[in-house]
Amino acid sequence: MQQITETLVRQVIQPRTQESHKGSFGRVLTIGGNRNFGGAIIMSASAAVYSGAGLVTCATDPQNFVSLHARLPEAMVVDYQDQDLLSTLIAQMDTVVIGPGLGTDATALEILKFVFTQVRPQQDLIVDGSAITLIAQYHLPLPVAQIVFTPHQMEWQRLSGLKIAAQTPANNQAVQQKLGATVIVKSHRTEVYLAAQSTIWQNTVGSAAMATGGMGDCLTGILAGFLAQFSADRGRTILAAVYTHSAISDQLARTQYVTLPTQIIAALPTFMAQLAS
Amino acid sequence: MQQITETLVRQVIQPRTQESHKGSFGRVLTIGGNRNFGGAIIMSASAAVYSGAGLVTCATDPQNFVSLHARLPEAMVVDYQDQDLLSTLIAQMDTVVIGPGLGTDATALEILKFVFTQVRPQQDLIVDGSAITLIAQYHLPLPVAQIVFTPHQMEWQRLSGLKIAAQTPANNQAVQQKLGATVIVKSHRTEVYLAAQSTIWQNTVGSAAMATGGMGDCLTGILAGFLAQFSADRGRTILAAVYTHSAISDQLARTQYVTLPTQIIAALPTFMAQLAS
Amino acid sequence: MQQITETLVRQVIQPRTQESHKGSFGRVLTIGGNRNFGGAIIMSASAAVYSGAGLVTCATDPQNFVSLHARLPEAMVVDYQDQDLLSTLIAQMDTVVIGPGLGTDATALEILKFVFTQVRPQQDLIVDGSAITLIAQYHLPLPVAQIVFTPHQMEWQRLSGLKIAAQTPANNQAVQQKLGATVIVKSHRTEVYLAAQSTIWQNTVGSAAMATGGMGDCLTGILAGFLAQFSADRGRTILAAVYTHSAISDQLARTQYVTLPTQIIAALPTFMAQLAS
Amino acid sequence: MQQITETLVRQVIQPRTQESHKGSFGRVLTIGGNRNFGGAIIMSASAAVYSGAGLVTCATDPQNFVSLHARLPEAMVVDYQDQDLLSTLIAQMDTVVIGPGLGTDATALEILKFVFTQVRPQQDLIVDGSAITLIAQYHLPLPVAQIVFTPHQMEWQRLSGLKIAAQTPANNQAVQQKLGATVIVKSHRTEVYLAAQSTIWQNTVGSAAMATGGMGDCLTGILAGFLAQFSADRGRTILAAVYTHSAISDQLARTQYVTLPTQIIAALPTFMAQLAS
Repeated sequence: MQQITETLVRQVIQPRTQESHKGSFGRVLTIGGNRNFGGAIIMSASAAVYSGAGLVTCATDPQNFVSLHARLPEAMVVDYQDQDLLSTLIAQMDTVVIGPGLGTDATALEILKFVFTQVRPQQDLIVDGSAITLIAQYHLPLPVAQIVFTPHQMEWQRLSGLKIAAQTPANNQAVQQKLGATVIVKSHRTEVYLAAQSTIWQNTVGSAAMATGGMGDCLTGILAGFLAQFSADRGRTILAAVYTHSAISDQLARTQYVTLPTQIIAALPTFMAQLAS
Repeated sequence: MQQITETLVRQVIQPRTQESHKGSFGRVLTIGGNRNFGGAIIMSASAAVYSGAGLVTCATDPQNFVSLHARLPEAMVVDYQDQDLLSTLIAQMDTVVIGPGLGTDATALEILKFVFTQVRPQQDLIVDGSAITLIAQYHLPLPVAQIVFTPHQMEWQRLSGLKIAAQTPANNQAVQQKLGATVIVKSHRTEVYLAAQSTIWQNTVGSAAMATGGMGDCLTGILAGFLAQFSADRGRTILAAVYTHSAISDQLARTQYVTLPTQIIAALPTFMAQLAS
Repeated sequence: MQQITETLVRQVIQPRTQESHKGSFGRVLTIGGNRNFGGAIIMSASAAVYSGAGLVTCATDPQNFVSLHARLPEAMVVDYQDQDLLSTLIAQMDTVVIGPGLGTDATALEILKFVFTQVRPQQDLIVDGSAITLIAQYHLPLPVAQIVFTPHQMEWQRLSGLKIAAQTPANNQAVQQKLGATVIVKSHRTEVYLAAQSTIWQNTVGSAAMATGGMGDCLTGILAGFLAQFSADRGRTILAAVYTHSAISDQLARTQYVTLPTQIIAALPTFMAQLAS
Repeated sequence: MQQITETLVRQVIQPRTQESHKGSFGRVLTIGGNRNFGGAIIMSASAAVYSGAGLVTCATDPQNFVSLHARLPEAMVVDYQDQDLLSTLIAQMDTVVIGPGLGTDATALEILKFVFTQVRPQQDLIVDGSAITLIAQYHLPLPVAQIVFTPHQMEWQRLSGLKIAAQTPANNQAVQQKLGATVIVKSHRTEVYLAAQSTIWQNTVGSAAMATGGMGDCLTGILAGFLAQFSADRGRTILAAVYTHSAISDQLARTQYVTLPTQIIAALPTFMAQLAS
């Protein structure tokens, strides 16, 4: 296993080309947040905005429109059950996140299936949380897209069939290669299995200060923001996002016992400036 | 009476084990917040999140979902009248808070009674505010659980039958032992009567800068967060929570005339880092 | 005219008695905020909380419950058209604010008239904004209470019948004495005509950085918080509130072109600590 | 082309006259924000308030009332489909913004047409985003008013008929003069074509850290705030607003990779104080 280094991340987070506009930094759609788990998709969309995505739209239950705008007026909102609008939007996107706070009921399943019919081969599709559980439970066929799964160990067990004790690098990679997708297995030492290469990467930053609800939702937004805007290859970009998420927590954890997702989100612009200089 | 010392608190707030995940730090459910008192349960849930609980869910009137998420996307929400969902959730919890902003009407009573049928012997159950008043008013039998009452002096009068002038340590302890629960009698020098021991503890930090609405709601969340995550025995953990709540106010009161609950909540991660180092 | 001095204000903002609880610092009810002007009552309630009132409840249009709690979970909320609840609440209050964002339609008039039937002789009643306009327009008889009017010059014209050019100290005082109330005529040099004495007071702090919407709503909350908690006589307490409001702006204006009401509110606890020490 | 200099901006942002009140600094109405794009009008209204407009009202979809007040209690709200109220309000305004988040559906078109029937010759009318698209699409005749268009290059193509490659200063000016309005063509080096003069101005501050959603909405609010309050001629005031928007981003970008609109808004009072001194 190879370690993700700050040097690698610095190669991804490059100073921005001055002749650019918001379209240059990508369009992101985050889909999730039912009536019980609205906070998850708020954090995913927020992380995408604060990590520098050009334009972010959040498809969610309409109940969550007001709380999202109260925190994040920079994002647009759309009813995640409005298939016509969702179809039009997905066609314009560079990166799609599905799963944070989506839930596992019939509505969630219908939304997930519909999104799978709409995504296109060159789009990045980050699949998290309940979406992973639904795929495992209903044996959903995967769409052709640049898929990134972000399971924690129990979700990875559901998706891979590998019990946690059996989640060795070799076993994980074997399943990941059959999936033909990137897999980020989140744990206290997160491992990344990239779609495009055989090297297995390990995250060596981060700490138990991150062990709090919503941390994974936050990661999906950083992944989306990075994939939407950076010109490095997808693999390095994904590694940089995983590292950044944890490295910010490490900075905050110098003075905090626990580091909350919303605090990591707020610190994205300054942390990224440090690495880009 | 014995005084709660910083040394004791430092023994409770230990650096986190690195091989851990959010589940390692406990699941908390806060129940309360009717249409008039929604802020109370928002503060309770917030204090649980900021004190480091692994996963926090807030059961409340649906009116409060949006304001809670606007402040705290880290928490999940559920309708506190949805008994099926509440039953499923309570079974998964380490710690349950009931009372902040619950009110004392028929709906409140029904929710309280239902929760009492659902909690289990090993769960921590923090009972605050209107829930204490309802228990006193309707002579509700207590469930078998690790109960912590957090009355102010008037609520303690209702629950214990002791008029404020008669609330001497000996009288308080006699009633507390009959209740078989921990009792935290809040005043300008809060006293703690632990379920498991005969020593009576006194809080010597805190000041009149804390004499403002919502301070007790904030304490319930810190108690829940501490009980959910720390491995010290329950008694010491409860004492540490009481101390932390007031000691943060003392730090803020160096430059503030009044210290608001939301400010104490925001300061939890940095204060806890000071004591854990 | 006599100038309000910092020395006078320091005599009002005294260190808190340690043997106290939230009830020691008073109960405040702020009434206002229709569907168009909800922000006004949010700022009034916020200023009451941040200036140290013990318990604050906000009676407003239910539309405003969620935005208020998203900013200020410390306050409770109640439908301002629920006369039964309002009647019960007013009976428990030390200080009532009516007017910020109330509007001038039939609903507003009905609420104002009802509140006038409920207040009691020893209660402080701060009457602001639309409430002043309604009193002038409908020649409403004033209730017996400790009334403080906070008109700007145009509202004072409506209430007093004095055109702005005719609002000399002598003319103002003549009308104020007939009203039998305290009158704070807000301008770039606010004048205070106290109910209990013949001295006219002038505010010499504050600047044009305060000339922005909502500044008067903020003042009503500081007045309420001060009257609810301080033991100085009413007159001095009112003068201290007027001074504090403007003096905070002056501190902020050292580095700000405009000082917003919400910024003044946030600075209340630290400013008051400076004067109390 | 002439460059906008800090010297010019310092001549516009003058210290405030002390004998003034909120009315002295103008009345602003921002119109926009449908159910999907509410954040845009929240940011426009916020920028108007934080740049120092005396009184700001936001006409929007009622869904956005609560999120706006949760962020900005200083502003008033009104249903943008309530033509009676809108008509009354517009008559009182110094400056009107229309377009941020308005959308391009039938409701948006109706609102835009109605506003065009209501504005008056001496009012400043800032036309942004979807409003520009609607004018181009439906060939709407422009009202007689002091119009400022704020298109990005694609919107300018729609309005002017000039493809982006053909948007040379000479071509732009020719169309702008036919429109008889001020045109701000936003790009990485924004150009300003003033209604009243033949000099073309270029903004030389700002960077790619501004290339993020909502940045244009923020500019409309600064334009409105500046036009409402400053006594310099319209042309210089507009140039000062364009410069201020970008110069704040430059200050933030010393430590941030991306600078969000809400961060620029929050920094307005301190930045303006620097230039006014």
